[in-house]
Amino acid sequence: MSESENSDRQDVFDRVCAMADAAAAAQAGLAGMNGQARNALLLALADALIDQADQIAAVNEQDCTQAFEEGMSAGLIDRLRLDKVRIADAARGVRMVAGLTDPLGEVVRGHDMPNGMRLNQVRVPLGVVAMIYEARPNVTIDVVALCLKSGNAALLRGGHAAQRTNRALVELIGGVLSEQGLDPALVASVDRYGRDGAQALMKARGHIDLLVPRGGRGLIRSVIEQATVPTIETGAGNVHIYVDRSVDMDQAIPIIINAKTQRVGVCNAAEKLIVHRDVAAEFLPRVAQALTQAQVELRLDAVSMDILAGHGLPEELLVRAEEADWDREYLDLKMGVRVVDSLDQAIEHINRHSTGHTEAILARDYEAVEEFSRRVDSAVIMVNASTRFTDGGMFGMGAELGISTQKLHARGPMGLQELTTTKWIGYGRGQVRP
Amino acid sequence: MSESENSDRQDVFDRVCAMADAAAAAQAGLAGMNGQARNALLLALADALIDQADQIAAVNEQDCTQAFEEGMSAGLIDRLRLDKVRIADAARGVRMVAGLTDPLGEVVRGHDMPNGMRLNQVRVPLGVVAMIYEARPNVTIDVVALCLKSGNAALLRGGHAAQRTNRALVELIGGVLSEQGLDPALVASVDRYGRDGAQALMKARGHIDLLVPRGGRGLIRSVIEQATVPTIETGAGNVHIYVDRSVDMDQAIPIIINAKTQRVGVCNAAEKLIVHRDVAAEFLPRVAQALTQAQVELRLDAVSMDILAGHGLPEELLVRAEEADWDREYLDLKMGVRVVDSLDQAIEHINRHSTGHTEAILARDYEAVEEFSRRVDSAVIMVNASTRFTDGGMFGMGAELGISTQKLHARGPMGLQELTTTKWIGYGRGQVRP
Repeated sequence: MSESENSDRQDVFDRVCAMADAAAAAQAGLAGMNGQARNALLLALADALIDQADQIAAVNEQDCTQAFEEGMSAGLIDRLRLDKVRIADAARGVRMVAGLTDPLGEVVRGHDMPNGMRLNQVRVPLGVVAMIYEARPNVTIDVVALCLKSGNAALLRGGHAAQRTNRALVELIGGVLSEQGLDPALVASVDRYGRDGAQALMKARGHIDLLVPRGGRGLIRSVIEQATVPTIETGAGNVHIYVDRSVDMDQAIPIIINAKTQRVGVCNAAEKLIVHRDVAAEFLPRVAQALTQAQVELRLDAVSMDILAGHGLPEELLVRAEEADWDREYLDLKMGVRVVDSLDQAIEHINRHSTGHTEAILARDYEAVEEFSRRVDSAVIMVNASTRFTDGGMFGMGAELGISTQKLHARGPMGLQELTTTKWIGYGRGQVRP
Repeated sequence: MSESENSDRQDVFDRVCAMADAAAAAQAGLAGMNGQARNALLLALADALIDQADQIAAVNEQDCTQAFEEGMSAGLIDRLRLDKVRIADAARGVRMVAGLTDPLGEVVRGHDMPNGMRLNQVRVPLGVVAMIYEARPNVTIDVVALCLKSGNAALLRGGHAAQRTNRALVELIGGVLSEQGLDPALVASVDRYGRDGAQALMKARGHIDLLVPRGGRGLIRSVIEQATVPTIETGAGNVHIYVDRSVDMDQAIPIIINAKTQRVGVCNAAEKLIVHRDVAAEFLPRVAQALTQAQVELRLDAVSMDILAGHGLPEELLVRAEEADWDREYLDLKMGVRVVDSLDQAIEHINRHSTGHTEAILARDYEAVEEFSRRVDSAVIMVNASTRFTDGGMFGMGAELGISTQKLHARGPMGLQELTTTKWIGYGRGQVRP
């Protein structure tokens, strides 16, 4: 790196730290508002989104056009799009967040100490929350709504392709904040600084309280390796469904089809099917027929390959799995299939290869359900239900910030509560320590 | 670094990862035990400590002798010492942890989803907890007791000076684990690998679920900068006491003396005294007399220096503060003193210079107490009580793993609950996502 690049990067770092400090100062004002005032702020934001939907959609159209010209895939452009219908959806989401229970001020624990002091642990905002995410401007609105409701400032780094839309949204939000008597520095974007801005978010320890990366494995890996700011790992989902010997086959097949195909490119979509040997000969041909009808390519271990031979299934969709398949998150119409000898072997396979996101068991046997749900070490266990339910909205959290696959602070979908910390307050009358 | 040093370090890393994986495998056995069995394990550990107290004390004597010969200070040797009396204390501590409420299995949240699924968020162990700490072998016993009670494996890196004692303790613990049908790999020490062992704990992401560094600023800084494993920052305490204009002076002075002098080298000892201008002329001479009688050196701002001149206080204990004093944690018989014009200015000073550990307000005015406890952004706020109460034992948590000064996952004293994470379990009957 040249000296001038180094000094440019230092300059960006200093600017981002200053933005974070300004956001923190503004956050004190937000934290001083009661829950009613924070809800009024969100409702004003929803109204502003509807009022300015035409302008936002027009700006977004420019982002989409440029992305198309630069050869972005249709799927990614779809995620980038924020048209009037989606703006109305987002505004509805903001109103829903306003309607959720206030996470702040809850007394989490409390008791009188033996010396007569009263001790309360109270829920408070984290402070300054930073987020690095893909080019999906509706995420900007979700994240800002969650942060404001939970009393936090937000520093945002959205994907390059959404830069115009995000700038317009941050401006709109700043206008609403000002109208409500808050400092617009409360919500800021570091997009203008490109990659150096993202780097600065990772290193601004003492200025930023939490950094959530959301996106591909490369981004998440680089955040884990480089960040000194506390972070939460999100998103990777090598999701397993275990079909027990006690499975209800008629119930199981719609669950597997839903988990695999209802939406393919998302982290809670199923990627692996682990089948107990005792039911494999009967169950595998049935589920394989349903899956291949839905154009799912099956990546099969030796046993399942043998079982499926000669059932008249489309051969191009029956592929022998490699060892590396067991660790892959396809995010595609593909599914790894393995036959196991026992529940124990299924649990062992899953705990070795899973990313700790979501796993399901399909079983009628009570003991198998208990064993599986206790011993599988993942954020979410689904029993006789689709893995697609792992979602902040489905869990009743309103919008979600992401799905944590780590164990510290937050595990599974992150909503309002995960955007808070606590503070202990000891109320004394002159007590000293003997 | 030479090539052979590099390959040695890689070798240590691989060995530490293997130890962590063995600990994780053993942890599955512990997590499968019910609370009663985990308590029985702790009681057996307490008994073994008493039974083998002579041998442990004799080994510790060797560590202490060597430390003395190598010129360790009396204070540090005192922390290193684990004689029969302290072993009995530690055993009592282990029994007390056994008597605490089981943190595992608690349903943290739960509700029926609109589609009829039952959704529970349940408290479960973290998995493998690593700790890097100073040469205090009683910490080894505390940490192991907390980890076993909460269903976790423990990987330990104690201070070099306590190496013999810690080795003997880990052997003793391994014996107890074997007797109770558990794999002794559940509790292991990486001490034999020296600094490379500590480095390996920081980098073993995917093998270790939580790393807690406890010790000097240098250690904590290097962990924050280098660790890829999730960590919790502990211990630094630039602790403030704010004396409001509404203070009860007779009540305040014993609190300040206790907070500053009851034990000097600890993180919850007060380091700064912030006094409202309206009471400074009357209060400062009184408190300064008490503090200087206790041999506390006062590091004074200009206003407090003026006020204290001509009161017949020992001049060698009245020193003008430098700007850097406001950020210093003395861990010594020293206290910074500043006069402020208002509660606002006090809060601003504290939020700028505090390490976020503990701050106290001494006041009779209700509104001042509310403002201070809401707006000061620290783990613990004490109202009219000594800051020395910030302690897991005092908070009713039993032994403590350390005091977190970060906001993520744990804030303030860390006990059993802070050694857990949660898991969501969704109980369905065939539900799929529409």
